[in-house]
Amino acid sequence: MYLKLINLIRINGEGNLNLSGITKTPEPPYYAVIFSSQRTEGDRGYGKMADKMVELAAKQKGFLGVESARDEQLGITVSYWDSLESIKEWKENAAHKVAQDKGKSVWYTSFSLRVCRVEKHNFFEM
Amino acid sequence: MYLKLINLIRINGEGNLNLSGITKTPEPPYYAVIFSSQRTEGDRGYGKMADKMVELAAKQKGFLGVESARDEQLGITVSYWDSLESIKEWKENAAHKVAQDKGKSVWYTSFSLRVCRVEKHNFFEM
Repeated sequence: MYLKLINLIRINGEGNLNLSGITKTPEPPYYAVIFSSQRTEGDRGYGKMADKMVELAAKQKGFLGVESARDEQLGITVSYWDSLESIKEWKENAAHKVAQDKGKSVWYTSFSLRVCRVEKHNFFEM
Repeated sequence: MYLKLINLIRINGEGNLNLSGITKTPEPPYYAVIFSSQRTEGDRGYGKMADKMVELAAKQKGFLGVESARDEQLGITVSYWDSLESIKEWKENAAHKVAQDKGKSVWYTSFSLRVCRVEKHNFFEM
């Protein structure tokens, strides 16, 4: 459901979400936030929130795209941003803060967050 | 199968693969390689190769851990390294080069590779 929505979204301006699920980001340097998580049992409103957060993030200044995959053991979501300032603004977004709190109290058993500077990238289409 | 193996591996030295699936990396800065991919249909020897590549990567100098998730639309594997030099050595590994070629010719329809410098991280266990 999460990825279906991602695949439907098209971003105006500098943002760009590719329909194939792999984000065609602009030339480096830019920034990535790697969010790895392990879920609690059951949905508990998670799917709906995840969709809403992608929708909101896509409206944030400096958002470049997002990639996400989840299997039984782990979920990884990588969002791409033009600057550390844009990442900070998204972190402070009020609706996002509510989701962050609920993530800690309801949805996740553990997670890691990494903020990275993308130095180089390559894309391949077979 | 891929993640099951990851969860069984324990790395000696500085490397560290956490049993929970989330890698407890050392203090930043360090490096991450984000590999996002879309698969062709069927296994075609992919699972076996993926297991072998994790096993080999874990023996490389400077390997810090790996996280991986795959669903119907996308796979994301993030490997962590101590330096750009270690990433380059892994890229040049002979067995890895064979797998890279087969990835392009048989296993993937598209993929992206991003090399990043991790600036900061946070871990949460609920």
